Amino acid sequence: MYKVDLNSDIGESFGAYKLGLDQEIVKHVSSVNIACGWHAGDPLVMEKTVGYAVEHKVAIGAHPGFPDLLGFGRRNMAVSHAETKAYVKYQIGALWAFTESKGVKLQHVKPHGALYNMAAKDKILAKAIAEAIFEVDEELILVGLANSELIKAGEKIGLKVANEVFADRAYNPDGTLVSRTKEGAVIHDADLAISRVVRMVKEGKVEAITGEDVEIRADSICVHGDNPEAVGFVEVIRKTLESQNVQVLSIKDFIK
Amino acid sequence: MYKVDLNSDIGESFGAYKLGLDQEIVKHVSSVNIACGWHAGDPLVMEKTVGYAVEHKVAIGAHPGFPDLLGFGRRNMAVSHAETKAYVKYQIGALWAFTESKGVKLQHVKPHGALYNMAAKDKILAKAIAEAIFEVDEELILVGLANSELIKAGEKIGLKVANEVFADRAYNPDGTLVSRTKEGAVIHDADLAISRVVRMVKEGKVEAITGEDVEIRADSICVHGDNPEAVGFVEVIRKTLESQNVQVLSIKDFIK
Amino acid sequence: MYKVDLNSDIGESFGAYKLGLDQEIVKHVSSVNIACGWHAGDPLVMEKTVGYAVEHKVAIGAHPGFPDLLGFGRRNMAVSHAETKAYVKYQIGALWAFTESKGVKLQHVKPHGALYNMAAKDKILAKAIAEAIFEVDEELILVGLANSELIKAGEKIGLKVANEVFADRAYNPDGTLVSRTKEGAVIHDADLAISRVVRMVKEGKVEAITGEDVEIRADSICVHGDNPEAVGFVEVIRKTLESQNVQVLSIKDFIK
Amino acid sequence: MYKVDLNSDIGESFGAYKLGLDQEIVKHVSSVNIACGWHAGDPLVMEKTVGYAVEHKVAIGAHPGFPDLLGFGRRNMAVSHAETKAYVKYQIGALWAFTESKGVKLQHVKPHGALYNMAAKDKILAKAIAEAIFEVDEELILVGLANSELIKAGEKIGLKVANEVFADRAYNPDGTLVSRTKEGAVIHDADLAISRVVRMVKEGKVEAITGEDVEIRADSICVHGDNPEAVGFVEVIRKTLESQNVQVLSIKDFIK
Repeated sequence: MYKVDLNSDIGESFGAYKLGLDQEIVKHVSSVNIACGWHAGDPLVMEKTVGYAVEHKVAIGAHPGFPDLLGFGRRNMAVSHAETKAYVKYQIGALWAFTESKGVKLQHVKPHGALYNMAAKDKILAKAIAEAIFEVDEELILVGLANSELIKAGEKIGLKVANEVFADRAYNPDGTLVSRTKEGAVIHDADLAISRVVRMVKEGKVEAITGEDVEIRADSICVHGDNPEAVGFVEVIRKTLESQNVQVLSIKDFIK
Repeated sequence: MYKVDLNSDIGESFGAYKLGLDQEIVKHVSSVNIACGWHAGDPLVMEKTVGYAVEHKVAIGAHPGFPDLLGFGRRNMAVSHAETKAYVKYQIGALWAFTESKGVKLQHVKPHGALYNMAAKDKILAKAIAEAIFEVDEELILVGLANSELIKAGEKIGLKVANEVFADRAYNPDGTLVSRTKEGAVIHDADLAISRVVRMVKEGKVEAITGEDVEIRADSICVHGDNPEAVGFVEVIRKTLESQNVQVLSIKDFIK
Repeated sequence: MYKVDLNSDIGESFGAYKLGLDQEIVKHVSSVNIACGWHAGDPLVMEKTVGYAVEHKVAIGAHPGFPDLLGFGRRNMAVSHAETKAYVKYQIGALWAFTESKGVKLQHVKPHGALYNMAAKDKILAKAIAEAIFEVDEELILVGLANSELIKAGEKIGLKVANEVFADRAYNPDGTLVSRTKEGAVIHDADLAISRVVRMVKEGKVEAITGEDVEIRADSICVHGDNPEAVGFVEVIRKTLESQNVQVLSIKDFIK
Repeated sequence: MYKVDLNSDIGESFGAYKLGLDQEIVKHVSSVNIACGWHAGDPLVMEKTVGYAVEHKVAIGAHPGFPDLLGFGRRNMAVSHAETKAYVKYQIGALWAFTESKGVKLQHVKPHGALYNMAAKDKILAKAIAEAIFEVDEELILVGLANSELIKAGEKIGLKVANEVFADRAYNPDGTLVSRTKEGAVIHDADLAISRVVRMVKEGKVEAITGEDVEIRADSICVHGDNPEAVGFVEVIRKTLESQNVQVLSIKDFIK
């Protein structure tokens, strides 16, 4: 029996601003990454969002980002090792207060946006994030882009790690994501996206944009809950996986 | 043997902005209240400040404030029960990440500025703060103005509480502080301030601005580390207390 | 021929967060109040929003608010006269840069949310706002709640003022708005709301919640563009006004 | 008679946080760059700082920076052309409200920190800044690093520009500043620094770190007012310049 986690970024509303169908998507995933009030989210939103996840028995992770609400954490920033480490600790702790209040444990940490992308390639940032997590709680699982520097930094320090893959993104022959600025970067054919995901999970391979096969480990699949279509797509992915002998489980239930 | 805690607000620097002689004042107090990045402080500052406290074996508390960096958390804001509760949880958690990283436990929570003053009188805010602390960690001690609604709310929910007194402030006959806007609100005579503090600790009484005695419980004395004179004053308070049979201890070491 | 302005708050999106049907509502009003990046809005949003207004030849005003993005500027804050004055100047200037870039003049200033409501009753805040506007540009029109302290402060300093009325709100016998916390504060019957507005404009009177008539001057009617129904309602208000001999014009075209 | 401007960054305090000897340095410079509330400064600080400059008849410029108070605007951020342009407009306008209130004209715009450094090399950012200034007010002078892309972008769009030089920094043979991370980047010898500045102004040349002469145009010299020594150094620079037939004037008084 194959096993995989489905994760989604939620809790991205802020004050009067609403974003995402959080109460819908939690019904279909096994883990959620909750924004921590820096690039998105606020304390009231965090409290509510943790509540949704607990209600649906979905595992919870922190989703720390850059201090850039205006840019939704999507803009690269030249932050130092020490800054990154402290920023990640702060955000993990902030979310911990809400999971602790509900009597549940934080499962993982997955950086958001530009922090995620930069840490996939930048060893110093990757190390800073891994150290932050390890120092706060050695049992937290680090979720990062499959094959990335972030995954390597987590393994090196002794954290459990989960390799994340994307159903709707093309891959380069070296296992990295094709940049969104390039043609073909996003896969719009839902059937193709799903069959690629199933293959990644079962065979550990994906066809790169150049046509050759790339080895990839798929511990967790990133899915979206921005709109009803996206939520519908998640339902289909989950059903297809389950129909093909792949069990959808929270990362903590199968990652060693 | 009498016992009392000396506490000071530290960690109030932010980014390029420096405030307070944190590395000096930690040598003379038994507890510190560390800003959590809302009205003051930032993650790097929190990390360093926790380090100073750990190095000097001073007990650490969270010092949550309003989301008002521009006003240093000193301006009243009309926040709801739910907002306050979530804001306090968030800030406790954020600081927890840094104490947890250093392997020490958070001792207490003391609200800052306008949040402290409003919660001294406003039962709803007081309840929100007490609930936030209790839900995150029942063992945390709530520090509030002696005789305040905040202290009552903490006791009611089942938290350990510490009554805070001020050496340099005049008291009303009902045990509340004389407003800073009134003449005589601040006591500038250092000897008088110290003798008042000693009496509060040993006799549980203080002379009100009207001349009559007021009952007051002094578990912790608030002192300042803004400048060299303030730090010098703290040294004198501490020596005077110790010379008069009052032991200076962290709250957790004597509060039941 | 009667004359009145229809105004709406727009430009309230922020970063990745979208709010309001700005491109729709600008087709139906004669003036817009554009958020200035404090309680809502950001520079890119301001630039776009000014563009929509210019395209539809709608007059533009600044909509300054409290420094409280988290609370959307709807929470009372204890700000001083000097702070308020400086905050309002800052926000007027920030928006001015975008109107100036497009070669149009700012028409008015209307405070937002808690700042608007507080300044309706608090003479010090009202004076601070009026002084800020007057010192930046004496020709700017101050828009405030009809009969409020804000209107009085504007008149006293020598600004042109516009009395704002609400179609969907009940009034007290003294001309103030019935608090939203009280029953009957909001008028849900669209026909009734419109007929009340027409009477305010033509007769200068409105029936208070207690049944008696109140004198009220209606220079500008506040309308909303949050959703398609709201926009539809504005179309109906405008058509009804025009069919009843009331001309809808920007404030500057008839206020003396 | 040679002519040069002495400029200093001021108005960098924020809320309770004080930074810089603004009231001292304004006595010795001919132009000031005032922070606009993004990387530093706040509306009250802006109001006061404009007041100091007006009192001492010093010309005023806007000093826009990245939206990064936490990093004091010193960290590179990946902002787009459109974002940069809107951010610069916003900040110019915000400061304009305070100069307009005092009846003085804004003289110039000089980007701060990372925005200044990035725009010295990045043509897109440079163009965005030049366009923002030009669209708000064609008469504003753009101050940028001598020989930089920012200066070129300003000239191209038709703005008056002022080439800024640094007394205490080493130059590369191509006229760019030696990075602070390299040895010899900062010149600590005050006499040497002053003689270099005099030569830049009078001969239009500076000795590069490699020993060869570089052509450089010095319209304005950047000086600091962080501490009493820095202020004293400015006094010496000014006296030395004046004793050597160099007149210190605001940029607007000699730039064409």
